Amino acid sequence: MNPTAVLLLSCPDQTGIVATVADFVWRNGGNIVHAEQHTDTVAQMFFQRVEFELDGFAFPREKLSYAFQPIADRFGMDVQIRFSDQRPRIAVLASKAPHCLVDILARWRAGQLNADLTLVASNHPDHRELCGFYGVPFHEVPVGDDQATQELAMRELLRSHDVELVILARYMRILSPEFVDEWPNRIINIHHSFLPAFVGANPYKQAHERGVKVIGATAHFVTSELDQGPIINQDVTHITHRDGVEELTRKGSDLEVVVLARAIHAYLDHRILPWGNKTVVFD
Amino acid sequence: MNPTAVLLLSCPDQTGIVATVADFVWRNGGNIVHAEQHTDTVAQMFFQRVEFELDGFAFPREKLSYAFQPIADRFGMDVQIRFSDQRPRIAVLASKAPHCLVDILARWRAGQLNADLTLVASNHPDHRELCGFYGVPFHEVPVGDDQATQELAMRELLRSHDVELVILARYMRILSPEFVDEWPNRIINIHHSFLPAFVGANPYKQAHERGVKVIGATAHFVTSELDQGPIINQDVTHITHRDGVEELTRKGSDLEVVVLARAIHAYLDHRILPWGNKTVVFD
Amino acid sequence: MNPTAVLLLSCPDQTGIVATVADFVWRNGGNIVHAEQHTDTVAQMFFQRVEFELDGFAFPREKLSYAFQPIADRFGMDVQIRFSDQRPRIAVLASKAPHCLVDILARWRAGQLNADLTLVASNHPDHRELCGFYGVPFHEVPVGDDQATQELAMRELLRSHDVELVILARYMRILSPEFVDEWPNRIINIHHSFLPAFVGANPYKQAHERGVKVIGATAHFVTSELDQGPIINQDVTHITHRDGVEELTRKGSDLEVVVLARAIHAYLDHRILPWGNKTVVFD
Amino acid sequence: MNPTAVLLLSCPDQTGIVATVADFVWRNGGNIVHAEQHTDTVAQMFFQRVEFELDGFAFPREKLSYAFQPIADRFGMDVQIRFSDQRPRIAVLASKAPHCLVDILARWRAGQLNADLTLVASNHPDHRELCGFYGVPFHEVPVGDDQATQELAMRELLRSHDVELVILARYMRILSPEFVDEWPNRIINIHHSFLPAFVGANPYKQAHERGVKVIGATAHFVTSELDQGPIINQDVTHITHRDGVEELTRKGSDLEVVVLARAIHAYLDHRILPWGNKTVVFD
Repeated sequence: MNPTAVLLLSCPDQTGIVATVADFVWRNGGNIVHAEQHTDTVAQMFFQRVEFELDGFAFPREKLSYAFQPIADRFGMDVQIRFSDQRPRIAVLASKAPHCLVDILARWRAGQLNADLTLVASNHPDHRELCGFYGVPFHEVPVGDDQATQELAMRELLRSHDVELVILARYMRILSPEFVDEWPNRIINIHHSFLPAFVGANPYKQAHERGVKVIGATAHFVTSELDQGPIINQDVTHITHRDGVEELTRKGSDLEVVVLARAIHAYLDHRILPWGNKTVVFD
Repeated sequence: MNPTAVLLLSCPDQTGIVATVADFVWRNGGNIVHAEQHTDTVAQMFFQRVEFELDGFAFPREKLSYAFQPIADRFGMDVQIRFSDQRPRIAVLASKAPHCLVDILARWRAGQLNADLTLVASNHPDHRELCGFYGVPFHEVPVGDDQATQELAMRELLRSHDVELVILARYMRILSPEFVDEWPNRIINIHHSFLPAFVGANPYKQAHERGVKVIGATAHFVTSELDQGPIINQDVTHITHRDGVEELTRKGSDLEVVVLARAIHAYLDHRILPWGNKTVVFD
Repeated sequence: MNPTAVLLLSCPDQTGIVATVADFVWRNGGNIVHAEQHTDTVAQMFFQRVEFELDGFAFPREKLSYAFQPIADRFGMDVQIRFSDQRPRIAVLASKAPHCLVDILARWRAGQLNADLTLVASNHPDHRELCGFYGVPFHEVPVGDDQATQELAMRELLRSHDVELVILARYMRILSPEFVDEWPNRIINIHHSFLPAFVGANPYKQAHERGVKVIGATAHFVTSELDQGPIINQDVTHITHRDGVEELTRKGSDLEVVVLARAIHAYLDHRILPWGNKTVVFD
Repeated sequence: MNPTAVLLLSCPDQTGIVATVADFVWRNGGNIVHAEQHTDTVAQMFFQRVEFELDGFAFPREKLSYAFQPIADRFGMDVQIRFSDQRPRIAVLASKAPHCLVDILARWRAGQLNADLTLVASNHPDHRELCGFYGVPFHEVPVGDDQATQELAMRELLRSHDVELVILARYMRILSPEFVDEWPNRIINIHHSFLPAFVGANPYKQAHERGVKVIGATAHFVTSELDQGPIINQDVTHITHRDGVEELTRKGSDLEVVVLARAIHAYLDHRILPWGNKTVVFD
């Protein structure tokens, strides 16, 4: 497939945006292959994702941002520009539970993730061999006496590898606001409940105690407030009185894997537009 | 189908219960058509539902309770005895939203509910005609100046009709502890969220503001704590950023109807064993 | 809400469509409130739904079709134009099972269906009273000795009421090719299985005999080949070995109601673009 | 947890079975921890799963079969006896697609599978390294010129490792009736559609061509008729017109993994009772 450019646009709703953007692409020789838009009528905000082929486009991709700037200015747009052949640099943070990490590595090996998986890091040594098998550098960053020091080391590690997206694949440390602020809407966490229910520790135990009949998983961007960030994907599965905490954990793990994977795919396909505490996820 | 008896049993877990109960039924000539059991290994509690044909049983049904008493005493059992040809007397309370009430009336007319639908009551007059069409007595019990008086009138109405099960089909009044205590685990409410998320008023608005990607509905027994009672049934449906509060309400209504109906069926089939703040629902 | 116009467009994929259409609307003073598009890369076909406010539009709605014609010609478009304040004339055909009909009538009464429900017709008299209650004209068109005659009478009835959309709400007669051809992609049927499995009669019995663990329902446009038309909506529910044909029928009915309703909503919101044996359903 | 014995019983329905079995266990000092039963009222067949603790049981496990024989004879029972601490010997057959195999290996490594994973075999060499990492013997059994010879080699391999359960984790060869007959109801396959729809090759392509709105996966026992064996587990996911064959394949893979895993868990927990072309799966 030919390389494409993706424009992710958001701005206050007003007339003429769609026509102006489409005209810009068309006039410059781009062929639009996907275009989705959404208007939040309450917030009066407009969101758009436009993907067009670069082949035959009037000017080189480096100039795209400059060329589009007058339109961005005119409508007060927040603009992100992505190219399908530029693979985002991603990192996975995990603790002891392997299921989400195993799944991400297998997808990466199978060529399903359009990304450069730069490293896996953990506060435990357990996944070193697994990462070795998949040929992904593994870094143990142990907590030791002092969580703050560990976090600084982790941030430095991510920074030094120029990581764009951080995936928390059941990473069981709470990140500081400083960490979160360094990757705003660039850290995806999987929480093992249907948020906003069962925030915090041991959601399967909480679910069992409440006697719910469904359990869920939620992939969300991390913000400084625990489990309160913009939700990207959620799903649930039915359970019964027969399921104890152990069964909930097993059934829930299968959910976590899929929900996190859907969120990662959405990010890497440039289909997510976060806004305030919500997301627009085009599909 | 021949009439059957259903034993709903719960007691501390101990050996010999299953054998003793099965032996009791068999020795007295009953043919077991269904038997389910559950052991809560954490609480060390045993739950059982045994259904057997009364045809050919050794003694008349009136004596069943007396005959079973020694077993109940021996194991410290809580025992409920039901007969498939005795239709529980039920009442539906609704406010203005018609969808759950329409569905219940249609199921009742279609002969799907093994119950005696004694009355529909509301704090509004809106559903009088609808109930008239289905031949179900309708009572308006308006709130007026004083909620307490209204509630007393409602309770007196239910009491005077000897109602066993009260169904809150989107009845928008909060019941007092006294009301709830008069029908313990005998009032089923439908709440329009996946509890414990979005307790209280306007859950679809809360869901929209939180930016969730699934919405849900929960049928539960009513206790004196709002939306905290034992959950009987839950389900969810996927939504997207395109769904405003109005769409959530429409999509959610379809869920509410089905989830409430499943809970009613479970109750009328004598498949629910509430225990503490949970339910065992055999299926 | 102000009235809007909806353009439903399909044509061979080519560059410039999006820009041209957006420019047409914008240049003439229309404010686009929704725009979705889809490119079928295999068939090389382009599909678009554009909704814009008529308020302040440059010319009256009667001239819209004429004004748009040059664009349609240029791209070889199939064009449908709809207005949000023009309510399609619909009719419901049912046989004996009431559940889908009851649901449609209740939605219509609740103001959820943006349509003019002109009549209900049936080969049986059963639903006369129900329709009377909802104030919808009911026509019994009995089959008698001769199905062909009945069908002619039914078609004449629909024709004389100028019906645009025919909803088969568990109508148990197979329509002739002539009937189908008169309302091409204008007859929605609900089939009680996940098509293409269990075509034809008694799908719940077929499902039970095959021992499946899910059952489904499918809403589709009717074509002259039985149960082979373009699928609009499908859903399933889990079942177990405990469910006999009667339980499948009961659980399935709840699915049928919702799946048919979703298809009707999609049609009335002008979100369906049938093409060949498939549908594009924007949501 | 103490070791338990599981009785899997099936016989023509008759009175006294439950009491007799429960009495047998209890009289001999066994504590029943789970008991589920099912009566197929159409086929007049009775199915039961009884699990009891061996601790304190009156005689050693080797004598259990002998001791139970009189009851089996009396009711004409088909009896299987399993012990929770005896791990079934299983083998996985795969072709090129890795996703199901990766998942099984990860579950096995995580200690979730109560089984002895004796080997992985394939008609291709691709998964040798992966199996090496997980420490599971890998055997390439290439097809070469002659499928019959390959199959004989495969059967000999399984036989020589005394394999009880064969898991086809997207193994793309059709097994001969002789192969199937050697492991009756002991070969589990994952088919990538909701059977009985889309039997045979390329179900995602078939699904795309039919224009369905859900896709599914089915785990079933293999019989000599292709994709017609007893279904153990099924699930589906929603799709839209935007999903091409590639997306269906990706979304479907996630389903296949989970549905196959559920079937394997059910088998290893001794919860499946196949009967005719169906299964009773207790949960």
